[in-house]
Amino acid sequence: MFREDIKVMDCTIRDGGLINDHYFTDEFVKAVYRAVSAAGIDYMEVGYRSSRKYAPPGDFGAWKYCDDDKIREIIDGIESNVKLSIMVDAHRVAEQHFAPADESPIDMIRIATYAKDIDKAIALVNRCHDLGYETTVNIMAISAENEYDIVEALDQVAKTPTGTVYVVDSYGYFFSEQIHHMVKLYKEHLPGKRIGIHCHNNQQLAFANTIEGIRHDCNLVDGSLYGIGRGAGNCPLELLVGFLKNPKFSLEPILKVIQEYMIPMREELEWGAMIPYVITGILNRHPRSAIAVRKTDKKDKYVEFFEEMRDMQD
Amino acid sequence: MFREDIKVMDCTIRDGGLINDHYFTDEFVKAVYRAVSAAGIDYMEVGYRSSRKYAPPGDFGAWKYCDDDKIREIIDGIESNVKLSIMVDAHRVAEQHFAPADESPIDMIRIATYAKDIDKAIALVNRCHDLGYETTVNIMAISAENEYDIVEALDQVAKTPTGTVYVVDSYGYFFSEQIHHMVKLYKEHLPGKRIGIHCHNNQQLAFANTIEGIRHDCNLVDGSLYGIGRGAGNCPLELLVGFLKNPKFSLEPILKVIQEYMIPMREELEWGAMIPYVITGILNRHPRSAIAVRKTDKKDKYVEFFEEMRDMQD
Repeated sequence: MFREDIKVMDCTIRDGGLINDHYFTDEFVKAVYRAVSAAGIDYMEVGYRSSRKYAPPGDFGAWKYCDDDKIREIIDGIESNVKLSIMVDAHRVAEQHFAPADESPIDMIRIATYAKDIDKAIALVNRCHDLGYETTVNIMAISAENEYDIVEALDQVAKTPTGTVYVVDSYGYFFSEQIHHMVKLYKEHLPGKRIGIHCHNNQQLAFANTIEGIRHDCNLVDGSLYGIGRGAGNCPLELLVGFLKNPKFSLEPILKVIQEYMIPMREELEWGAMIPYVITGILNRHPRSAIAVRKTDKKDKYVEFFEEMRDMQD
Repeated sequence: MFREDIKVMDCTIRDGGLINDHYFTDEFVKAVYRAVSAAGIDYMEVGYRSSRKYAPPGDFGAWKYCDDDKIREIIDGIESNVKLSIMVDAHRVAEQHFAPADESPIDMIRIATYAKDIDKAIALVNRCHDLGYETTVNIMAISAENEYDIVEALDQVAKTPTGTVYVVDSYGYFFSEQIHHMVKLYKEHLPGKRIGIHCHNNQQLAFANTIEGIRHDCNLVDGSLYGIGRGAGNCPLELLVGFLKNPKFSLEPILKVIQEYMIPMREELEWGAMIPYVITGILNRHPRSAIAVRKTDKKDKYVEFFEEMRDMQD
């Protein structure tokens, strides 16, 4: 698939940070930055700009806050055309500071929100645009929202200056037809805006659904190295780059950083489409129960977990 | 997805046997038979009926030959509506004996072939039908065949009594659009025949591609427990059953046999979408080089393997 407009976002540090409280070493973050730079990836998301009031330092590593100076420590001296992104939860904005974009190493601010918090997201979009940042709006958990509320949110976002709105399958529930439906709905209600896609891999469909997004004109697409991310993880960046035929992309630097860093890391940190994540995906549920059960000695008691989850729906 | 005509085939013992020379214990084969019976699966494939001339006993376990008496040892005393299937390679037929179907525990014979061997496959179809078996024709490795040869094979198979012809993505190369194209081509050239689908998971697309087959009217669909199978493995049966909404299917027996047998087995035997399989999938190559490299101390030297595979294409 070659389409010049397609831009790729690497979420390794940001979504991966959700499984280690954002404690990645500088060495690793630099290695990822070098790899995605060499691979021709367009954007790299380095973490959250969280409030220290809601997320007390000591509980989290540096990539929970992504201070501009911390980012500079990583990127200084590395040649790169990669644009940097951070994520902000619209419903957890407090004292966080954002420098004017031309004084910051950050190019893009992605605003994560729920349909019900869309007004908070819009306020943040406006604030970030006034400072000169690119923005995206990522409405999460849409597979468990009613469509009326989604449409209402989209119609409001349509009037903002944000450039991109993401279809986000937080629960790893969707298959192709639902992706087609959602992307079509977003395009219809967001004239002139770019559509992004961010998928989770509960049912081993993150890459497939990302392809379906691309086939239906999503032009900002997310992946992460070896699929790292919370719970079942994300669309593996290596599969995505193998699929995109734009010669600006190169697979070797991605394979190299996977063999050097991700394989050893996977021995220490767990992510992927293990059965409890399959179960929450099939049932269209938040992965938190699956994440919790994987930390207990019942982590492979699938029948018990399935029955518990299924009966919670009654 | 509910469509009454959809039948599911479990390939655990047959495709899984390719990674342990078909040495499964009777206990395990019985456990799988009980599980798929309780889960409402339609067919279970127990292995190959290979020639002892080409495959000398001593090199292989019982499921390389699937003698009728061996199968009876497994199924005797277990209540089940599951139909049993065996696979035969059309290009390796020698002294194998097939009893008349009404004297055999076997219901279906699946004939694996290449486009170039289609005449051998047709001879075997006719022989098996004369004995009273259901048959399928599974033309392998079609992603690396030219379409003229595929169409010629299909046009010949169209005239045989076989009931089902499979779209087989042996190399795990296809994505949705190619599955749509192939299924359409098969339907066009095989009027009145059922189309089956058998996918490999090199690019984590086996389940997604199986869904795409189902969406385009494939009605005999293959899966295996926890995706076991050669190389990257197959479409995971648990994902398939989670997707199919026919109430005759039940997920619990499948989860149970996975937690009791497949999780410990995965510690001993390797299958799944490891990076060397990703690479052969992306490059549309037979997985044999990836299987080989995974048995060496270079198993995680992805860059080297990628460059070697890519350059072999020149």
